[in-house]
Amino acid sequence: MRAIYFDGNLHLRSDFPIPVPKAGEALIRTRLAGLCRTDLEIIRGYGEFIGVLGHEFVGEVVQADSHPALIGRRVVGEITAYCGRCPTCRQGNHRHCNHRTTLGIRGRDGVMADFFTLPIRLLHPVPDSLSDEQAVFVEPLAAACRIVEQIHVRPDQRVMVLGDGKLGLLIAQVLQQTGCNLLVIGHHPHKLAILEKRGIRSQLETESVDSDQDIVIEATGTRAGFTTAGSLVRPGGILVLKSTFHGAVTLDPSRLVVDEITIIGSRCGPFAPALRLLKQGLINVNPLIEATFSLDDGLAAFEQAASGGLKVLISGSTGNRSGGSTDRVGKYL
Amino acid sequence: MRAIYFDGNLHLRSDFPIPVPKAGEALIRTRLAGLCRTDLEIIRGYGEFIGVLGHEFVGEVVQADSHPALIGRRVVGEITAYCGRCPTCRQGNHRHCNHRTTLGIRGRDGVMADFFTLPIRLLHPVPDSLSDEQAVFVEPLAAACRIVEQIHVRPDQRVMVLGDGKLGLLIAQVLQQTGCNLLVIGHHPHKLAILEKRGIRSQLETESVDSDQDIVIEATGTRAGFTTAGSLVRPGGILVLKSTFHGAVTLDPSRLVVDEITIIGSRCGPFAPALRLLKQGLINVNPLIEATFSLDDGLAAFEQAASGGLKVLISGSTGNRSGGSTDRVGKYL
Repeated sequence: MRAIYFDGNLHLRSDFPIPVPKAGEALIRTRLAGLCRTDLEIIRGYGEFIGVLGHEFVGEVVQADSHPALIGRRVVGEITAYCGRCPTCRQGNHRHCNHRTTLGIRGRDGVMADFFTLPIRLLHPVPDSLSDEQAVFVEPLAAACRIVEQIHVRPDQRVMVLGDGKLGLLIAQVLQQTGCNLLVIGHHPHKLAILEKRGIRSQLETESVDSDQDIVIEATGTRAGFTTAGSLVRPGGILVLKSTFHGAVTLDPSRLVVDEITIIGSRCGPFAPALRLLKQGLINVNPLIEATFSLDDGLAAFEQAASGGLKVLISGSTGNRSGGSTDRVGKYL
Repeated sequence: MRAIYFDGNLHLRSDFPIPVPKAGEALIRTRLAGLCRTDLEIIRGYGEFIGVLGHEFVGEVVQADSHPALIGRRVVGEITAYCGRCPTCRQGNHRHCNHRTTLGIRGRDGVMADFFTLPIRLLHPVPDSLSDEQAVFVEPLAAACRIVEQIHVRPDQRVMVLGDGKLGLLIAQVLQQTGCNLLVIGHHPHKLAILEKRGIRSQLETESVDSDQDIVIEATGTRAGFTTAGSLVRPGGILVLKSTFHGAVTLDPSRLVVDEITIIGSRCGPFAPALRLLKQGLINVNPLIEATFSLDDGLAAFEQAASGGLKVLISGSTGNRSGGSTDRVGKYL
């Protein structure tokens, strides 16, 4: 099958073996995959991953021995495959399982291929009312929802999102639902315009801002963003770090102590709320799509994504809503 | 009057003017003052403070025009004099008032003198059952209590305190009350022995420790301690920064994000619980006292404190429980 494979270099392979699901796993055909900043960080050396890239997907189940009713269903899936048996898992802290593999990120081939496997317990059926183009955003939208899972954002709080990238635009829409006093800082007028259309205030980073924020979300993924975020949060306030990036930052621990700042790292989030928000029409992801490439043009998709635009999607063999015949899958299998 | 004064150099002055309380303030005679790591950091240049040092005290009210019933009472006092009118204060966030002065730390002369002033609303009468030597620990004990004000320490959690200094020993005793699975890491066997006597587990830092802590309290006040603390907290865990020190630290933001670590800066705390814990005999501060100097020997007290031992106290003109005559005060006034 075809696969976008990274081993220090990025390849489009046509001879990659179709994976064989293990017990409890499904074989899934990729309908649509999303390209994320993390994918770009990986090919820049973050995390030392080798394998098929991609963790944002909507797919169709083609094999699920323990759950045959799932075959033919459109699904999205959580990306952390946990062991379920270690102390961390038993405490319900699955996403931090020490024995985990992470789809397309750590020890597990990802979704930028014709097929991939994932434990069935990580799958969520996609409601018929959602398009593939909406469903492929469930994973990053869940990551945005993680913030309100970790901290209580009160409707009277001043909340600032730094960064108008794909994740920043999703975070802003999630936080808008809380009724908070929200301001998004970015440097792309056309991206901020997407938020303005939804009534979310935004500003270019060159403009002056109030440095007395109750909560600041760092979603630029840059050192400069981290420093700026720290300077904008009020004493007693919360700084949420949302993006991974390669490198170290410097901070003044005395400022953290004297001003009693809380810094919270925030990663993957809950899928069910993300699906609900999309289904209820509360989050609009369509303006966030910049381009869709076929898997055959996967390398061009990475080039496009690296240019810093909005969401780049990669479609599988039949990326449309009508779904593909499983006959072709059968031939492969 | 006498005062230990810092202006880039440390002086024992004998000619310092007795302060005149402003409206709402009391004039207080220092019975006993405590020397804190922050005092040492100030004379090393932290915070650029100029004035009379000292913020830990038990004193006797000698003038309180708006509350004459307080005169003659032994008191301890919160150290942050807030405005009460700004938005931060109106939100109940007094300790972070932008217009604050802080006793012996920022814009307000401290307690290492015969007399000092403090707003009456910051004073807490000391129960008769507590000695001066106990009461002088209320301020740092309140800072220890701040941790359980900020985070919920559950009885089943693994909690580690790094640092066997004065604050670390108080924090350990406060956390012991939660029933948590507590371990204190230090490098002074005689200090750790104080905790062992109270049934608190401890280890020398040279021994290997479990790096899977739910909560780690950094109370060493060193860069190395910060780095160690970060390596010992489990994914999803909490790192509490308790000590201020001069300088910057580096951290890996990706680790914070991927492991969803929370870092919380923690400063001053609530006095009422600290007084209750002392009164109920749940915290033993007596073994924490290393030496008591008279105010006349204040410079020697700083030398002793800088040698890294336990709590060094400075007694005022009559530092014993029986209290001093206010006649002498009257003469000064």
